Amino acid sequence: MGKIKVGVLGATGIVGQNYIRLLNNHPWFEVAYLAASPASAGKKYSDAVAGRWHMTVDIPENVRKMEVGDAGIVDDAAGRCEIVFSAVEMEKQAIKDIEAEYANKGFAVISNNSANRNIEDIPILIPEINPDHLEIISAQRKRHGWSKGFIIVKPNCSIQSYMMPISALMKAGYVIDKMIVATLQALSGAGYPGPSALDLIDNVIPYAAGEEEKSEIEPPKIWGRIQDGKIVNDSDIRISAHCNRVPVTDGHIACVSLEFSGKKPTYEEIIHIWNEFKSLPQELELPSAPIHPIIYRPEIDRPQPRKDRDADKGMAVTVGRLRSCNVMDYRFVGLHHNTVRGAAGGSILSAELLKAKGWI
Amino acid sequence: MGKIKVGVLGATGIVGQNYIRLLNNHPWFEVAYLAASPASAGKKYSDAVAGRWHMTVDIPENVRKMEVGDAGIVDDAAGRCEIVFSAVEMEKQAIKDIEAEYANKGFAVISNNSANRNIEDIPILIPEINPDHLEIISAQRKRHGWSKGFIIVKPNCSIQSYMMPISALMKAGYVIDKMIVATLQALSGAGYPGPSALDLIDNVIPYAAGEEEKSEIEPPKIWGRIQDGKIVNDSDIRISAHCNRVPVTDGHIACVSLEFSGKKPTYEEIIHIWNEFKSLPQELELPSAPIHPIIYRPEIDRPQPRKDRDADKGMAVTVGRLRSCNVMDYRFVGLHHNTVRGAAGGSILSAELLKAKGWI
Amino acid sequence: MGKIKVGVLGATGIVGQNYIRLLNNHPWFEVAYLAASPASAGKKYSDAVAGRWHMTVDIPENVRKMEVGDAGIVDDAAGRCEIVFSAVEMEKQAIKDIEAEYANKGFAVISNNSANRNIEDIPILIPEINPDHLEIISAQRKRHGWSKGFIIVKPNCSIQSYMMPISALMKAGYVIDKMIVATLQALSGAGYPGPSALDLIDNVIPYAAGEEEKSEIEPPKIWGRIQDGKIVNDSDIRISAHCNRVPVTDGHIACVSLEFSGKKPTYEEIIHIWNEFKSLPQELELPSAPIHPIIYRPEIDRPQPRKDRDADKGMAVTVGRLRSCNVMDYRFVGLHHNTVRGAAGGSILSAELLKAKGWI
Amino acid sequence: MGKIKVGVLGATGIVGQNYIRLLNNHPWFEVAYLAASPASAGKKYSDAVAGRWHMTVDIPENVRKMEVGDAGIVDDAAGRCEIVFSAVEMEKQAIKDIEAEYANKGFAVISNNSANRNIEDIPILIPEINPDHLEIISAQRKRHGWSKGFIIVKPNCSIQSYMMPISALMKAGYVIDKMIVATLQALSGAGYPGPSALDLIDNVIPYAAGEEEKSEIEPPKIWGRIQDGKIVNDSDIRISAHCNRVPVTDGHIACVSLEFSGKKPTYEEIIHIWNEFKSLPQELELPSAPIHPIIYRPEIDRPQPRKDRDADKGMAVTVGRLRSCNVMDYRFVGLHHNTVRGAAGGSILSAELLKAKGWI
Repeated sequence: MGKIKVGVLGATGIVGQNYIRLLNNHPWFEVAYLAASPASAGKKYSDAVAGRWHMTVDIPENVRKMEVGDAGIVDDAAGRCEIVFSAVEMEKQAIKDIEAEYANKGFAVISNNSANRNIEDIPILIPEINPDHLEIISAQRKRHGWSKGFIIVKPNCSIQSYMMPISALMKAGYVIDKMIVATLQALSGAGYPGPSALDLIDNVIPYAAGEEEKSEIEPPKIWGRIQDGKIVNDSDIRISAHCNRVPVTDGHIACVSLEFSGKKPTYEEIIHIWNEFKSLPQELELPSAPIHPIIYRPEIDRPQPRKDRDADKGMAVTVGRLRSCNVMDYRFVGLHHNTVRGAAGGSILSAELLKAKGWI
Repeated sequence: MGKIKVGVLGATGIVGQNYIRLLNNHPWFEVAYLAASPASAGKKYSDAVAGRWHMTVDIPENVRKMEVGDAGIVDDAAGRCEIVFSAVEMEKQAIKDIEAEYANKGFAVISNNSANRNIEDIPILIPEINPDHLEIISAQRKRHGWSKGFIIVKPNCSIQSYMMPISALMKAGYVIDKMIVATLQALSGAGYPGPSALDLIDNVIPYAAGEEEKSEIEPPKIWGRIQDGKIVNDSDIRISAHCNRVPVTDGHIACVSLEFSGKKPTYEEIIHIWNEFKSLPQELELPSAPIHPIIYRPEIDRPQPRKDRDADKGMAVTVGRLRSCNVMDYRFVGLHHNTVRGAAGGSILSAELLKAKGWI
Repeated sequence: MGKIKVGVLGATGIVGQNYIRLLNNHPWFEVAYLAASPASAGKKYSDAVAGRWHMTVDIPENVRKMEVGDAGIVDDAAGRCEIVFSAVEMEKQAIKDIEAEYANKGFAVISNNSANRNIEDIPILIPEINPDHLEIISAQRKRHGWSKGFIIVKPNCSIQSYMMPISALMKAGYVIDKMIVATLQALSGAGYPGPSALDLIDNVIPYAAGEEEKSEIEPPKIWGRIQDGKIVNDSDIRISAHCNRVPVTDGHIACVSLEFSGKKPTYEEIIHIWNEFKSLPQELELPSAPIHPIIYRPEIDRPQPRKDRDADKGMAVTVGRLRSCNVMDYRFVGLHHNTVRGAAGGSILSAELLKAKGWI
Repeated sequence: MGKIKVGVLGATGIVGQNYIRLLNNHPWFEVAYLAASPASAGKKYSDAVAGRWHMTVDIPENVRKMEVGDAGIVDDAAGRCEIVFSAVEMEKQAIKDIEAEYANKGFAVISNNSANRNIEDIPILIPEINPDHLEIISAQRKRHGWSKGFIIVKPNCSIQSYMMPISALMKAGYVIDKMIVATLQALSGAGYPGPSALDLIDNVIPYAAGEEEKSEIEPPKIWGRIQDGKIVNDSDIRISAHCNRVPVTDGHIACVSLEFSGKKPTYEEIIHIWNEFKSLPQELELPSAPIHPIIYRPEIDRPQPRKDRDADKGMAVTVGRLRSCNVMDYRFVGLHHNTVRGAAGGSILSAELLKAKGWI
């Protein structure tokens, strides 16, 4: 039996390249369609990315000669694939329009873009945290009159270093009240070319456009519940984020202080909860699921981007330095690979979950 | 009339080298004595630092041929200088003993070391913040029976990016209740050789030994008052620090969230307070005093280490990104030059204050 | 008596900003005119560079409010200045045209661009090496019918780390036959934004567009003689360059192997020649002239970009590691500050020479 | 049938750690013995490297609990393994003595150290280049009276970026006369901790202790022939090396200019020779042998350390930028992974060759 055919929209960009890299030899999916801007359309993929292929592995052979389609012409994709991973680079409204059009034509759209994240019936999916949010696809289809297609999105990469450990504590019954987070974010999170080397040698930039807002707005939706065809969150949880850009290629660090409302876990309980945490992707043994979604490192100076970002093929979140906080309850450091777990890898895991649950 | 003669203890280390660099052509002081470990004692200074002079300017001519004394033999310094800047590298207790011995022999000891910071009658001085703490020198002398000598210390460099802006708000009548701080600290704060390049290329380390504890303990003492010959602080102020090491040569960044108790200033008031802040070193026009101890930059992505660390010869604290905080009241970013304002430069300013106030 | 008024064409770019920084408080010159692209024309300078002022010192006060002219409209500059420093960013032919037009209108044009470097009657000037090439200005004026204006250019920054030490040996009577040079060039040589940080973290790039060709072609012209209104070089000197880009902000390194034709100097002679080298700018005591144009450092691991680039305000060339070569005669390492000596600083020194010699 | 048991001497250092990483799941070998300094002897391996395990993968499970022996006590290894990979850190003479003692007791000693490289009957092995040098083992055994043991060494990492491409040309019948090489060497080549981060941020160091000498002396021996139980080279080939240290974790670059004696290959011939080059390790299909020992990349700016060092699991040498040289015949850039091909990986390939050829 054949693999499921997938397409990559925005295939020439750095996120698109990561999709191609990570989908190479995937057991369930095969890249069957590539689309990009009109400027690339009609070219062989290897020509379209000549001089701007940024992966450290070469372009997979089967993709090299594939002809690139126009991401803006949905009919180009017709019959070529079932799923489209969307990493198009356009204006926000144009992204919303084009993704809706793909869904309308029956494609499962899994988007890396932020354009649709604030739509009430589009889930921001982290497969280990809110797999139940897939149920809202029915409401989404009904509202739009889509028979088969739908849209789901991945969250911003800045939050993924702490969403997993915090959610594990929530799942164990503890209620988080507030969090103050300072991130040290990698360069690849800003795309290519991204920041100038002149700005990041012997320097850090205590600012990353849009990252603080997304870090504060997205988590409550991910932790929300479905009600009347909408994802809502009635809790009072508040997050404050300080986002910094540092001279690291891949791997975002988050320094987290958190406060519980009501009962507080002990230090040992937290470590235990993290070490034991497993969720639906692990139970279903999805191909891209990390064995342990959370890895707690006892060393005093971990996690570190270069040493920990590739844990379990870049899909695990590494945590360390759990200690009490002078102001809130606890402090810890989280880290994840922002272009794997935080981007293409996370979306591929979402596609696997959709398949396993029968949505594709 | 001649300049005041000063000595540098630990003159061969990186802090000692900074003293020598910054004291070159000082209008009030001249380096007249250098001391280091027994291994260096007896050598010409240029020989003692051969292969490990790390400043980007050359050794000043007058210092080059100076014979290095033994920092552990206080009599070596007798008659050579009035002030000793102490940057010796020894065990904590040994530092306490030797600094007391210098004070006992009549020297004004200004120390970079943390050994004496928790002694109740030794002030941790930031000249713009707690110049009144110099009064405790009388108690100190009385307790020890010292007729002329005394000890003052400088605070840890990790706190200096926020002490000035926070203290300016306090001086304006606002009461700070709590702060959560994440620092991105430069390599030079760890001395030389400090971290391995292998650990800081394409990496950051979310840990700096001892820095978090010092960041939480020292500020309350600096903001304390003198009572019965001791510096005490009865307030409930709490600080939580996350300290990170980043691949930057000089310049510590602090990402600060703070909460007031009682009345809160407006955004405009805070900017105004910072822009207008001046203190005793500015009034006395001390040679090393920055014209504006706090520089607020309106750009969205400042302060940055490479662009802002040298503001006003490295003696000003640069602040930016003031904004409201989702969890506390306000957020901002502070930056200072850790080996100038945060180390040798700050201590030289302290010496100038001591002179201006008649303690030397 | 007033200072000479100068203009900066391409004032908003990184080279233009360096001119403004280095001309601040210049004893002979004052910035009286700024020009850039039509997009910037009409704006206050501070507005024109908002968000892209890259110097680590602030915009000088007198320049901040200056209105920016259109570099393409020569009449905008009329009566505003005598000298224009050209750092416009345009197509090669457009640069040639516009620089000729400025010269035609009587301006002394000192250009950072490569466009005019291969014109036989336009000198590539390094003031210590070929000050006599200024004589060709007469031929240049005659050919074009210019009464007062003229054009001179500065060489490519990649060659300046070795031109001074090699030329000193030539001046002492030794004949160089061939050289093989490998450069480790700083990021600022590629302008701003220049290379992406993603390409230079944990990486070097063994290529810099156009640099090898310029490194091989320009030196013979600089070492040439004037004959029939042209600069010619009949020698057989050959240079081969390997140019690399490294993660350094400022300061180009050159690893040089060289072979003499005929008599060879001894090691001691070379060091002596370098230490004693002085030329016309030193004799004339030009304001920007370094006291020692060549500084030889005896340490085994120098020169280094961060430690040596600022030698004598960035105008000296630092040399080290002279040793015999297994294949040619000698090897050494040279270093200069590519945006000071190698760009704006070098051109300002040229302007000073032009003034001192009566061409302005 | 079981795997061959191997030991790692100097197992706690960074080279030793690389051996352990690369030997994990090796098809022919298994790590059965670990030895280090007396300070580590007797400890569990995980305890011995606590706080200084620098690999980005965790310690393999089977090695974690292994008890560390004393590398200086040869009998500790007796019966535990057949091969010892030596990466001990001692004085040169002590290394010579201890390696001879292991050989004397019957162990096959494959050494990373330079101590034995100049011994005439000890081959410096690069399996694709001089596999025939293994024949000298007989002479070695005879001279020492060793029945079973022997010593072979790997070359210095600084030369491996050009030995393979140059040797391929030699094998094709072209004679190399001279070479001038400038290297940009990675930090890991200097061990751990190696250079201070303070020295390599915004900086490069144009010096690497001992590297230039080794780069010039070792190649002729590798290209030598066996005569009367000695490896000799009568050719006149001369190499001159400029060695630089750059802020790259792994991957040495070499910028090479080379001159042929006699017939010169065309550009197309060189590319063809490199692309087609295969040698004994490829014919024998040794487990660690790269499929193509030389990979020529046509892109204008390759090879680059971060993008090319992992080519074929770090065992291939990547070459690019072949072009004519103004002074010699050709220029090119070579790159290899200095801790894989240039160290542990190269030695493991040597062990595989020894096994395949019946020496073990």
